[in-house]
Amino acid sequence: MPSPLVAVLMGSSSDLAAMQPAADVLAELGVPVEVRALSAHRSPEQAIEFARSAAKNGFKVLICGAGGAAHLAGVVAAHALLPVIGVPLARSLGGLDALYSTVQMPPGIPVATVAIDGALNAGLLAATILALGDPLLATRLRARREETTGKVLASDDEVREKGSRLLD
Amino acid sequence: MPSPLVAVLMGSSSDLAAMQPAADVLAELGVPVEVRALSAHRSPEQAIEFARSAAKNGFKVLICGAGGAAHLAGVVAAHALLPVIGVPLARSLGGLDALYSTVQMPPGIPVATVAIDGALNAGLLAATILALGDPLLATRLRARREETTGKVLASDDEVREKGSRLLD
Amino acid sequence: MPSPLVAVLMGSSSDLAAMQPAADVLAELGVPVEVRALSAHRSPEQAIEFARSAAKNGFKVLICGAGGAAHLAGVVAAHALLPVIGVPLARSLGGLDALYSTVQMPPGIPVATVAIDGALNAGLLAATILALGDPLLATRLRARREETTGKVLASDDEVREKGSRLLD
Amino acid sequence: MPSPLVAVLMGSSSDLAAMQPAADVLAELGVPVEVRALSAHRSPEQAIEFARSAAKNGFKVLICGAGGAAHLAGVVAAHALLPVIGVPLARSLGGLDALYSTVQMPPGIPVATVAIDGALNAGLLAATILALGDPLLATRLRARREETTGKVLASDDEVREKGSRLLD
Amino acid sequence: MPSPLVAVLMGSSSDLAAMQPAADVLAELGVPVEVRALSAHRSPEQAIEFARSAAKNGFKVLICGAGGAAHLAGVVAAHALLPVIGVPLARSLGGLDALYSTVQMPPGIPVATVAIDGALNAGLLAATILALGDPLLATRLRARREETTGKVLASDDEVREKGSRLLD
Amino acid sequence: MPSPLVAVLMGSSSDLAAMQPAADVLAELGVPVEVRALSAHRSPEQAIEFARSAAKNGFKVLICGAGGAAHLAGVVAAHALLPVIGVPLARSLGGLDALYSTVQMPPGIPVATVAIDGALNAGLLAATILALGDPLLATRLRARREETTGKVLASDDEVREKGSRLLD
Amino acid sequence: MPSPLVAVLMGSSSDLAAMQPAADVLAELGVPVEVRALSAHRSPEQAIEFARSAAKNGFKVLICGAGGAAHLAGVVAAHALLPVIGVPLARSLGGLDALYSTVQMPPGIPVATVAIDGALNAGLLAATILALGDPLLATRLRARREETTGKVLASDDEVREKGSRLLD
Amino acid sequence: MPSPLVAVLMGSSSDLAAMQPAADVLAELGVPVEVRALSAHRSPEQAIEFARSAAKNGFKVLICGAGGAAHLAGVVAAHALLPVIGVPLARSLGGLDALYSTVQMPPGIPVATVAIDGALNAGLLAATILALGDPLLATRLRARREETTGKVLASDDEVREKGSRLLD
Repeated sequence: MPSPLVAVLMGSSSDLAAMQPAADVLAELGVPVEVRALSAHRSPEQAIEFARSAAKNGFKVLICGAGGAAHLAGVVAAHALLPVIGVPLARSLGGLDALYSTVQMPPGIPVATVAIDGALNAGLLAATILALGDPLLATRLRARREETTGKVLASDDEVREKGSRLLD
Repeated sequence: MPSPLVAVLMGSSSDLAAMQPAADVLAELGVPVEVRALSAHRSPEQAIEFARSAAKNGFKVLICGAGGAAHLAGVVAAHALLPVIGVPLARSLGGLDALYSTVQMPPGIPVATVAIDGALNAGLLAATILALGDPLLATRLRARREETTGKVLASDDEVREKGSRLLD
Repeated sequence: MPSPLVAVLMGSSSDLAAMQPAADVLAELGVPVEVRALSAHRSPEQAIEFARSAAKNGFKVLICGAGGAAHLAGVVAAHALLPVIGVPLARSLGGLDALYSTVQMPPGIPVATVAIDGALNAGLLAATILALGDPLLATRLRARREETTGKVLASDDEVREKGSRLLD
Repeated sequence: MPSPLVAVLMGSSSDLAAMQPAADVLAELGVPVEVRALSAHRSPEQAIEFARSAAKNGFKVLICGAGGAAHLAGVVAAHALLPVIGVPLARSLGGLDALYSTVQMPPGIPVATVAIDGALNAGLLAATILALGDPLLATRLRARREETTGKVLASDDEVREKGSRLLD
Repeated sequence: MPSPLVAVLMGSSSDLAAMQPAADVLAELGVPVEVRALSAHRSPEQAIEFARSAAKNGFKVLICGAGGAAHLAGVVAAHALLPVIGVPLARSLGGLDALYSTVQMPPGIPVATVAIDGALNAGLLAATILALGDPLLATRLRARREETTGKVLASDDEVREKGSRLLD
Repeated sequence: MPSPLVAVLMGSSSDLAAMQPAADVLAELGVPVEVRALSAHRSPEQAIEFARSAAKNGFKVLICGAGGAAHLAGVVAAHALLPVIGVPLARSLGGLDALYSTVQMPPGIPVATVAIDGALNAGLLAATILALGDPLLATRLRARREETTGKVLASDDEVREKGSRLLD
Repeated sequence: MPSPLVAVLMGSSSDLAAMQPAADVLAELGVPVEVRALSAHRSPEQAIEFARSAAKNGFKVLICGAGGAAHLAGVVAAHALLPVIGVPLARSLGGLDALYSTVQMPPGIPVATVAIDGALNAGLLAATILALGDPLLATRLRARREETTGKVLASDDEVREKGSRLLD
Repeated sequence: MPSPLVAVLMGSSSDLAAMQPAADVLAELGVPVEVRALSAHRSPEQAIEFARSAAKNGFKVLICGAGGAAHLAGVVAAHALLPVIGVPLARSLGGLDALYSTVQMPPGIPVATVAIDGALNAGLLAATILALGDPLLATRLRARREETTGKVLASDDEVREKGSRLLD
């Protein structure tokens, strides 16, 4: 079994359902992932140790999902020199607290933030980053995007037809 | 069948229920419409091609509904020199994200934004624009507005009566 | 002198500087406008009378700018069956109060809202509406948009050159 | 039957449940009220006519509840020189749009705004205003407030007891 | 000298400039006022004592301006059975904190809230309340409003003329 | 029975469920608490009297939970020279009104604010303060935090395993 | 020189002016403090090491000020079992991002949050906590609060006098 | 001269000062960049053409800065299968409109969003992505981060010393 290239971290195991789309889309694209529940506040030593050793353990991209005062992505980014993707989770205030805590990082330590509850896009962004050095993955990503477009076009046909019936 | 004058576009077929009132009120007023699911991000070429050829295909007004980072109206307005009406849809943050993405357009490229989930008003606004050149439509619009007023007045009678009974 | 087709209304004469771009761009495009200070709250009878008689006085589109609890566009729209364009002005709360008051109209009475302090786009939107029945204006609008694009492309050349010098 | 001193107005009959506490508390305090559904946008002439003739019809205080771009209180205040109490209703954006539209009135035309969905307090505020000239009503209001305090004190006893059991 | 009917309270003497328009307009209308700096948090005993004895000291309406966690109006309303008008002051967050703290009062204890930094309207609202029992004040208020309308109409003439010159 | 060191106050008995975690965690840590429903607005004299006599009654820390225009913590802090912990409760606007009313206190009168609906953390914060002078409590707190970390680590094992199965 | 009991930490030396009132008021009250610039993101190892050893180094209370995605207080609280006071600093979004990042901590790890830019209150809160075990400090705090009240009462006299002159 | 690997795009040449830190830090790290002003709305064809051909022109990462209804990053991401980094610029509403428009992308098309006005971090994020395939760049990035930490530690010494002097 290949060693994981992407870690999908979350601040609490109750975030698993929200973060699963990140792991799923990476698995679908053939990218090995590791899924972990590591809290910036309640298991900080483990979270920091994970971040510090991530590069030498072979990880290339780290995805971090958290809600509320969502510090996980920032803490991980402070201890790892890898691309860190933050997923703000909507546990309170519609996710605004998690969004601001994740995206408003100070100069020097970036976090690549995706939409509130946007785990799927976090997985796709990780894959897009990895695809820069993996032509096969780039091909799979392109096929997936074409499939996405195909679905929208198919739904356009349905909507158009429903629309014309509405107007009969 | 007359060729459509108004297009009701939406970023995803899952927006159909939210956008249907626009098509319905236009149909009710006798304005031919076309309903389409075209995504600014997932089927961008089709969305842009639709916008570019809209005027020469006979469209007069384009209604665009989208949620989240709702770029559809702006993208359509960038490629078409027709009145573009934006309908922010409440998929996240109560619709604030879609509202700001739709209404805060830069100088040069206006989008006529209606209320969050305000598809009915988008349809009425489109009809009001078309009515400038269509006296029959203007008459229908006026009749519809009088009907709207009539309904409020009828409900006023009911409320007044209930109110007086409350106080017995 | 041709009779005005567009009215640029504002809730207070102190809004004149903010609303002038609407009148200016319409004048530039050859559309005759009338500029008025009519308050929904402090001169309501005059505002309502203006709205009620606007259509028969030859107006085709009404632009209304107001700040705070910006009721002007809504009040005008309640009394006129013409396209009403609302411009929220940033007098408090960064303009959010005016934006919500202008855009969140109830079903039945639409207001076409543009960006906070977006008077220029209000003028362009009015012109785009009028251009549906005025091919000469459509041509002028298209020329203006091409000019806008030209300016961006010229600035792109400058930025690109500055950028390459930055990197020397 | 005494002629009404307070009017409880709402923008739509669908607001009746939200506004009923205002009428109920006034009835409880012996203040005759009239309940009306009058829309600032959909039946503007009736709303304005009501406001203009309110004082001469014997009304002393006008309560106006509305949601979204809640213009009703402002429009009524523009046409009546009586205390106008605004109740922002939470139909969208948690009621923030209605709150800002109601409270952010321009200098010259005040609206006395209460909490989002705060119809009960609107009724109490109206009664407090009327009590300035009605000692019997003042006595009733004082009794009601003492009753309110009594209920809180009784609940304090319950909470204290439950709390001490929690800690056994 | 007549004893004051309205108190203009503020949480800090640094709020005097913001609250002065309330006192000024009341003085202009011939209503005797008392101006006080009483903090809900830093001089709570004096603030509460003032509220408790306000009615028996002849006050009819209490105006309270405060910024930040603006508790003054609520605390005063908890201790006085008079109409209490709250003026949220914009010391932080554009005044949103003060607005919410002032307007979102619990059922039972209303505060009549005016716009952020809306001291002038607080004064006018107090006068409108007093005018219910003072026909001379009602006449002065009506004259003042007509004057306000007159100023808007005069500014309309200026704006209209400037507008027509802009278009030459 | 030991006399209580911490008071858990709430503005309404309907807040009991939201505030119970504060009392529970203190009880779990062996800290005697008293639970009270005292409203800053509806039973202000009792609330103030409680605050004024809290220190001499042996209380060391006061926890205050309230929603809406949540003045309770501020009012208590104005009358007691003890650490006051505020818990904003999400009754409206997602709790933003309560958060701002609780946290934005003026210079001189601090309130230690925890998360919206964060009663558990209020209890832990109170215990952490008391533990400065109580080594046994400090030991219990440390054990509880280690237990918290242990739970996260156990959930990490589960999540990791589920994650690896997802990818089979 | 006595060893410091309170640490005033900030995420960047550019926050010194904003955080100085915390150190100043503690010094004024005779509480020895240490002032440090330790970034949760840019010098995370030093920040964590400081937090971990704070208790054994004799610190009793830790004050942490930071702006933007203000993680400092949360990170320190995750590594220290001492009362941690968070001061959100207004570097962007009026301080809302820092407020949410500081206050919305997850269950288990509290941060005692004060107002945006509320360093003075952070110092006072720290002193109030220490005063539980230091009667002399409690006396100084009480004197300081009385002085604060005295200043408000003096300013009340001035305001009252100015107010009465306004009305001459 | 090496062909550029990163493009720094902005919606308007007036954004150059805000976006320059992205280009500067990349130049400092030895990454060749191209700086462009391409508007999603005013020069859409050029923006789209740039995005479509970016990969085949050798670009690896695209940085897009825009304010208001900031559609640039989303439009570029819709037409390019490369990592797209969005920088929301604070031109209105404190940058909230640009933040939401940039970050709230729909499933399928991610944008890696950094802080409002966070161009420096956009450059660092791009470099971190490129460093996955460029060990020399990884070394430079690590050196730069150590330098950043060193600056914070040096400022800590200064702050500590100033702090101890404050307390003399």
